[in-house]
Amino acid sequence: MNNKSIGVFDSGIGGLTVYKALKEKMPNEKVVYLGDTARLPYGSKSKETIIRYSLENAEFLLTKDVKIIVIACNSSSSYAVEALQKKFNIPVLGVIEPGSEAAVKCTNKKVGVIGTSATIASGAYAKIIHEKSKDLEIISKDCPLFVPLVEEGWIDHPATRMIIKEYLEPLKKENIETLVLGCTHYPVLKDVIKEVLGDDITLVDSAQTTAERVYHIFKSLGWLANTDKNRNDEFFVTDFPERFKRVGEIFLKKKIDRVLIADLSLKGE
Amino acid sequence: MNNKSIGVFDSGIGGLTVYKALKEKMPNEKVVYLGDTARLPYGSKSKETIIRYSLENAEFLLTKDVKIIVIACNSSSSYAVEALQKKFNIPVLGVIEPGSEAAVKCTNKKVGVIGTSATIASGAYAKIIHEKSKDLEIISKDCPLFVPLVEEGWIDHPATRMIIKEYLEPLKKENIETLVLGCTHYPVLKDVIKEVLGDDITLVDSAQTTAERVYHIFKSLGWLANTDKNRNDEFFVTDFPERFKRVGEIFLKKKIDRVLIADLSLKGE
Repeated sequence: MNNKSIGVFDSGIGGLTVYKALKEKMPNEKVVYLGDTARLPYGSKSKETIIRYSLENAEFLLTKDVKIIVIACNSSSSYAVEALQKKFNIPVLGVIEPGSEAAVKCTNKKVGVIGTSATIASGAYAKIIHEKSKDLEIISKDCPLFVPLVEEGWIDHPATRMIIKEYLEPLKKENIETLVLGCTHYPVLKDVIKEVLGDDITLVDSAQTTAERVYHIFKSLGWLANTDKNRNDEFFVTDFPERFKRVGEIFLKKKIDRVLIADLSLKGE
Repeated sequence: MNNKSIGVFDSGIGGLTVYKALKEKMPNEKVVYLGDTARLPYGSKSKETIIRYSLENAEFLLTKDVKIIVIACNSSSSYAVEALQKKFNIPVLGVIEPGSEAAVKCTNKKVGVIGTSATIASGAYAKIIHEKSKDLEIISKDCPLFVPLVEEGWIDHPATRMIIKEYLEPLKKENIETLVLGCTHYPVLKDVIKEVLGDDITLVDSAQTTAERVYHIFKSLGWLANTDKNRNDEFFVTDFPERFKRVGEIFLKKKIDRVLIADLSLKGE
């Protein structure tokens, strides 16, 4: 098992924040990343559709000899973790559970959760946070314009600031202590969000906590990579590899050698 | 042929502007509408993917006994019209050609075209406008945030106004006489766009011109419906029928009886 890969999928490019955290924690692990860019975004789609897409993504990764599947997409983590755990006999981990755990650790009374419409409608964060700490008060808000703003590259733009203010002012008024960035795109807006909310509110980004969780799973199973051979990570998308490469290099602040097209209809090839 | 239906597809809900124009022009025609909401938006996807999705949508409509296929989606009209015309032996019509014709009629020197990234990158409007009038100067601009703003319902919102200004101010400075709204969502923002641009610029919305074109095709072929029996239009989506019904009723300003799920994998059923 040790030198098999970590399989990561997202609806698109946002999951690269999780990829980055995994590589920082475990530089010797090889990662195979799949971005389902032909069908993004997942955030506006139904539970059934998200589960179907997630199963297809996982099946593709399984053809690439992976030892774990990390769902680096909040919408998919909200709905599909159990379906994938049932179907496949390797560990499957989403970002919601680790993100919730981090939030519970930093909060005494009131926590805010933001995400896509699908993530917020699923109530997944609220459910798991309550399981861990039933007295916490949770204020949730979907912010559907954040992903298009990030993808347009309008990070520090007056319109972005105005939209952030409109979405988050009510949460600030509620005196939340912690805000969970429940979408892998949102960390890109971290600085502007921090400016709008002020220094008293802690921002939780689940990528790092998820990477730590993967490390502990491997450690407990004895599955950590035992090679220091330089292995090239692999990047697949279902559409537009050039765009993924270009925007991905901005996300990662380093070069991506190549991005290949994944044909999801060729299951089990 | 006469009492077969008009097949209309779009990536989602925007094509209802075309549906509405068709029914206003030809109230006796029955329309079967398909919104590919499981895979929307098309505007950020590649040519190959858009063609594949469009072929699947058309194949579904053909199982519903249609006499024409109207592509009520600018991204799909930009890339897929020819592929569909080659594959199927009924008329196939997109919105780009009728929209371009209307633009040429209202412009002496300079025309602006706005749309999704896919539509603008395709150069489809520019190509067809130049075929019709080679001396017109064309200024194109993609406006990727307009669709999410419309879907969020932020029509008359300060942030929307700021974003419209940022996208369109350069076109205004270029002294365009006409602006083609090259995306079926954009007519919803018509009033605010008019406010930002002023009264001197004519807005062209291709839905109406497309409906007129369909009428003339039917007339020339003798295919106009010859029944005045009240026939119920049919609405299909690939995901989230409830959402389509809710937002669709706002688009149409009337009740939609029911919206069914279309399973595109059941081709030719």
